[in-house]
Amino acid sequence: MERHLYDADHEAYRSTVREFLAREVVPHKDRWDDEGWIPREVYAKAAQAGLYGIQIPEEHGGAGVTDYRYRMVVCEEVARVNALSFGLTVALQDDLFLAYALARTDDEQKKRWLPGVASGEFIGALAMTEPGTGSDLQGIRTSAVRDGDHYVVNGQKTFISSGIMADLVVLAVRTDPDAGSRGFSLLMVEAGTPGFERGRKLDKIGLPSQDTAELFFSDARVPVANLLGEEGKGLQYLMSHLPRERLGVAAKAIATSRAILDLTIDYCQDRTAFDRRLVDFQATRFELAELETEVDIATAYVDQSVLAYNAGELTPVEAAKGKWYVSELQKRVVDRCLQLHGGYGFMREYAVGKAYVDTRIQTIYGGTTEIMKEIIGRDIASR
Amino acid sequence: MERHLYDADHEAYRSTVREFLAREVVPHKDRWDDEGWIPREVYAKAAQAGLYGIQIPEEHGGAGVTDYRYRMVVCEEVARVNALSFGLTVALQDDLFLAYALARTDDEQKKRWLPGVASGEFIGALAMTEPGTGSDLQGIRTSAVRDGDHYVVNGQKTFISSGIMADLVVLAVRTDPDAGSRGFSLLMVEAGTPGFERGRKLDKIGLPSQDTAELFFSDARVPVANLLGEEGKGLQYLMSHLPRERLGVAAKAIATSRAILDLTIDYCQDRTAFDRRLVDFQATRFELAELETEVDIATAYVDQSVLAYNAGELTPVEAAKGKWYVSELQKRVVDRCLQLHGGYGFMREYAVGKAYVDTRIQTIYGGTTEIMKEIIGRDIASR
Amino acid sequence: MERHLYDADHEAYRSTVREFLAREVVPHKDRWDDEGWIPREVYAKAAQAGLYGIQIPEEHGGAGVTDYRYRMVVCEEVARVNALSFGLTVALQDDLFLAYALARTDDEQKKRWLPGVASGEFIGALAMTEPGTGSDLQGIRTSAVRDGDHYVVNGQKTFISSGIMADLVVLAVRTDPDAGSRGFSLLMVEAGTPGFERGRKLDKIGLPSQDTAELFFSDARVPVANLLGEEGKGLQYLMSHLPRERLGVAAKAIATSRAILDLTIDYCQDRTAFDRRLVDFQATRFELAELETEVDIATAYVDQSVLAYNAGELTPVEAAKGKWYVSELQKRVVDRCLQLHGGYGFMREYAVGKAYVDTRIQTIYGGTTEIMKEIIGRDIASR
Amino acid sequence: MERHLYDADHEAYRSTVREFLAREVVPHKDRWDDEGWIPREVYAKAAQAGLYGIQIPEEHGGAGVTDYRYRMVVCEEVARVNALSFGLTVALQDDLFLAYALARTDDEQKKRWLPGVASGEFIGALAMTEPGTGSDLQGIRTSAVRDGDHYVVNGQKTFISSGIMADLVVLAVRTDPDAGSRGFSLLMVEAGTPGFERGRKLDKIGLPSQDTAELFFSDARVPVANLLGEEGKGLQYLMSHLPRERLGVAAKAIATSRAILDLTIDYCQDRTAFDRRLVDFQATRFELAELETEVDIATAYVDQSVLAYNAGELTPVEAAKGKWYVSELQKRVVDRCLQLHGGYGFMREYAVGKAYVDTRIQTIYGGTTEIMKEIIGRDIASR
Repeated sequence: MERHLYDADHEAYRSTVREFLAREVVPHKDRWDDEGWIPREVYAKAAQAGLYGIQIPEEHGGAGVTDYRYRMVVCEEVARVNALSFGLTVALQDDLFLAYALARTDDEQKKRWLPGVASGEFIGALAMTEPGTGSDLQGIRTSAVRDGDHYVVNGQKTFISSGIMADLVVLAVRTDPDAGSRGFSLLMVEAGTPGFERGRKLDKIGLPSQDTAELFFSDARVPVANLLGEEGKGLQYLMSHLPRERLGVAAKAIATSRAILDLTIDYCQDRTAFDRRLVDFQATRFELAELETEVDIATAYVDQSVLAYNAGELTPVEAAKGKWYVSELQKRVVDRCLQLHGGYGFMREYAVGKAYVDTRIQTIYGGTTEIMKEIIGRDIASR
Repeated sequence: MERHLYDADHEAYRSTVREFLAREVVPHKDRWDDEGWIPREVYAKAAQAGLYGIQIPEEHGGAGVTDYRYRMVVCEEVARVNALSFGLTVALQDDLFLAYALARTDDEQKKRWLPGVASGEFIGALAMTEPGTGSDLQGIRTSAVRDGDHYVVNGQKTFISSGIMADLVVLAVRTDPDAGSRGFSLLMVEAGTPGFERGRKLDKIGLPSQDTAELFFSDARVPVANLLGEEGKGLQYLMSHLPRERLGVAAKAIATSRAILDLTIDYCQDRTAFDRRLVDFQATRFELAELETEVDIATAYVDQSVLAYNAGELTPVEAAKGKWYVSELQKRVVDRCLQLHGGYGFMREYAVGKAYVDTRIQTIYGGTTEIMKEIIGRDIASR
Repeated sequence: MERHLYDADHEAYRSTVREFLAREVVPHKDRWDDEGWIPREVYAKAAQAGLYGIQIPEEHGGAGVTDYRYRMVVCEEVARVNALSFGLTVALQDDLFLAYALARTDDEQKKRWLPGVASGEFIGALAMTEPGTGSDLQGIRTSAVRDGDHYVVNGQKTFISSGIMADLVVLAVRTDPDAGSRGFSLLMVEAGTPGFERGRKLDKIGLPSQDTAELFFSDARVPVANLLGEEGKGLQYLMSHLPRERLGVAAKAIATSRAILDLTIDYCQDRTAFDRRLVDFQATRFELAELETEVDIATAYVDQSVLAYNAGELTPVEAAKGKWYVSELQKRVVDRCLQLHGGYGFMREYAVGKAYVDTRIQTIYGGTTEIMKEIIGRDIASR
Repeated sequence: MERHLYDADHEAYRSTVREFLAREVVPHKDRWDDEGWIPREVYAKAAQAGLYGIQIPEEHGGAGVTDYRYRMVVCEEVARVNALSFGLTVALQDDLFLAYALARTDDEQKKRWLPGVASGEFIGALAMTEPGTGSDLQGIRTSAVRDGDHYVVNGQKTFISSGIMADLVVLAVRTDPDAGSRGFSLLMVEAGTPGFERGRKLDKIGLPSQDTAELFFSDARVPVANLLGEEGKGLQYLMSHLPRERLGVAAKAIATSRAILDLTIDYCQDRTAFDRRLVDFQATRFELAELETEVDIATAYVDQSVLAYNAGELTPVEAAKGKWYVSELQKRVVDRCLQLHGGYGFMREYAVGKAYVDTRIQTIYGGTTEIMKEIIGRDIASR
């Protein structure tokens, strides 16, 4: 069905995004993948071009635009050029880091940090996961002990997106080991803090140029002025931003599904076998018909979720439904599209091959499919 | 997500529908199933209560309300009381018979037929399928040969819903065997026409009280005044009403899926095994979480389809996507819900058992899943 | 692959079985379904013809043949003529009732009961399930209290196959409420025992002529001489016969899957649409190719299971794997075969329609799919 | 069930294989993956240790052992150490190259080539696929025109395993463009043949150290003495070796599925979340139960196929069934096992992550899943 999600302003924004990607990303992205790294200045340019951070208030250097549809446009355009490593860092700024940096900071902190994020000078990260605790936030063991005007932080984090290049890290710590779920807090750790070290870039099966790392804290001293919100409310804050994180994964998932499906349809129209176009085989047509149907149906849900999010109505459970379902759909779509490419699909130079390996993390980060089902299932059980 | 599909008028209508069903259907439906028949007067009452036919113009006895959301409300309430045999005949009037009887009739014909439909005096049917032609409309062999002011009709139809009790049958015939796709026409055949006979009620695995039959035509004489629209345009008319028929199946499918899922959630909250409620088992929670997610996601698409239909924008391909996907979803949902009931699910007295057998036709009539995929696939191939 | 399971003796037996079914079952089975009952004398003839009970020792009237391949032959031939209601009662005698009646009886009891079973005079049943306890055997509440030479039995059983016509019922009771898993025993209850009443025949969505009922016990007096094995070992006995029961379901499942697939292949070769045979459509060919592959692959496992059972090596976990997997496969196969029949598949007169409703219980009785997965999962967890 | 496939000789051979892998492969394979290359001498050592080539007759340096169970042992042990890049080259020698080099060579040719293969001096390849022809062998355009004692070869091949290092290439060419399916022949092209060039190593998403390349032929002169079998019978020869190639993929698939499942079970027993082992969650147990069941069931079929192959009875259609089904199963198993690893699964250092990317080609090469279904479907249609 004709989508009625966007108006002319979104489409104008889309042109800007598309132009930026064509100029600054597309010509370089294969090299970045080979080198395993995207230069920082690319993100600075992206911030300046408004690809992310537009929700930062104008007084702090942003545009004050909180409409999630602009974010959706970025997802779609990034997917269309298959720049998922780049896109993930952008997503991280908007859907994770800034969610905290905007909602959990006081005016003083906003002044210190937001302008740098808006200008692209600062890259942010969010550090929750530890070795041994994935989705189990209550298992966090990184400790922060008050010592005068500082917290002394000890512990280790892993799977931290943008961990190596981050200038600002929202760090989940345990400030009171005896306080149960009220014993956690969030600190903003700045690059250069003594005792804060980064591990090597982790070697992943996909997202080759995307920065994922371990972080180490050994008596790292973080000023109390860097506490986000109130001490003891860390877990509550983490919970409160989950809908956006989940929506963010669903948004990337639907955009990638559509982009890969569309290029596969083109491929099946162009490519011949046994003297016929691939789309001239009924089995191919059925396959494409199933995929397009499934993508269309999920699109209706994601679009509705975007509007609900804009209206402040998207619940954690609704977001969880979109997160697991659409990320699993993405896996299915990309896998079947790869199959339709035959041997070419296994080649890294084909978009579908790259998308296949990049896709695999989507059902895992931001809460695994299993965690999402548990959240939804508990909601059902408790009605 | 909170559905924004309905307004207060729809909810008021829902109360009427619910009240009607509680009074006129629920106390009798098991008996009807045992007897294999629903008395005609039930439909007359339903018509008078506005459960169907409200789209008939006011001058012909209806309410002139074409908003499909009212039809959706009926689907939901019928599903909620698991009266699918009853609901199918109602659906047939609105989504099939009246689509033709309203759009393809001239004023004279409207005056002859619509008031009787609006009052419930006349039950309509649509006769396309023949033994040997299911989805293949061009294979229709029932012939109508002009003879003065009449068509002389010979042939056989099968799987005709309401075939036994229909007073008016929209009949697809071949009027010109040499004209290819332009050789088909539609006639309104009235009960009592000499040479028009009904076969026995077909013995189905589900929908026990619903009327499905074969129709036989041996030199049946149908007045030329009963030709619908123009001679030779029959196939074109059949095509033009497909979106509504497909939407109708999707509407029933999503309504039944939701209704059966909801009662299964209740069952799993009440029923215990190994001294725990079924919802206290993680596997049950995951199952319910998956089902509710899938139903929610499809709901977004169906709701969007309803609005697109109201706006005259729903294309045959979009309707085909909803038709196959949601009817297959219904099968999956009802099957898994039955499984959660254990041995009770196999019992006819449990709603889920009845729904299971009634559901099985949904992926077949109105165009099989395979035909839908072919339609969508050809659309993709021809872009 | 060519099956090497059978030798000439099995094939000779197959001819006997086939001939019996053609003469005594096929001409009558539709009428039995309409009437909801299969006359007792049919089972008597079946017993005399050796369709079941051949494992009974020669001195008690049987043939002393314990090779499970003969049982497999019966499954295949019953499936081939789609006589699943008949077949289930036969299966019940061999895979359930006789397993207990042979292994848990002393010589005296054998003399009392086995000749009647061998001659077809006695029909047996097994009564484990109660309202409120499905797979949860420890939840059994039917009590048996010793009173002199009798047990006084009180309680209720449900979903009991052959419950109405059974002459002998192996009844699971609780003989010591304080002894935990050692508090259960098995009694042989004979028809006519005062205080033993049968409920109505349960109204199922499938297996219409098969006898399933509730049983009621009110101070029913069962002689102590009818205790099977030792008091307190009931649960252990029930456990010990599970592999055979599970193998029995898998055997029926693979046989039905194959039979329905084969007739569907024939149908797709004969039936035309759009002027081509159904098998001339690539989508049909793919569907049939997938189904035949899946059935062939499962056949390899079931055949292996049969040989392992014959060798006394089939473990409960291996049997559980076959039970859930092949019964779920049967559901999938029959469902997809029905779909290939189009509207005819929904008609009761087509074998596939009947098989569809009969099939649905297979993943539920004999331990649901979920119970099987739990059993296998616990085995994995405990390695 | 206890597998009865192997006897003591196979198990002794297993020890040898295991010891070889532990010494020569395991310590180096991660480095090979990083470097994108496995040194040739590794294969020479493997040949000498009997990891492949044992079916070469004794007079040509082999052991004359054609029992496929030894090959199965290699698959299992390679999978167990997750050395799939290494394993694929070994498989290529046995299941593809040697199939031709043994069956289609005359004595003279055997003397020239087999000793070098047996000693590991020569690596072989098979070159069928061309850009534009995947599974469509009749689309082969590489031409060989007779010129005196030579064929002059022109054309291009792609996706050729071991293409860069191969000393001997079995090359499918068109020798008579007007002879339809009888216009194809096979030539053995030796390294160093003028006009025969290798392209770059193709950059794949998986199997990083495995050698896949394009081959180019520009007026390459191949002696007529290097013709395999008869001119014009190339297609027939290619067809005749398909069962072995397909069995080879199924063998690798089942071995990898089992190996990855087993290490995942270990992982789920060791790893904790929310203070419980992963296997203590019912959803994990169900997942593992489903996977182990599916792997067990497919194992029965593959084992049966191995014995049928040994007996010369495995048909192309039976092999096609195993090929598509078990390779699709492998994809499913590895994907779900990766998911159970959470974030660690996405890391290249975890076996499951590597296996995930290596696995993806299995449903494509050796005939895609779709080609297999078409082959099976045509067989069904033509019965």
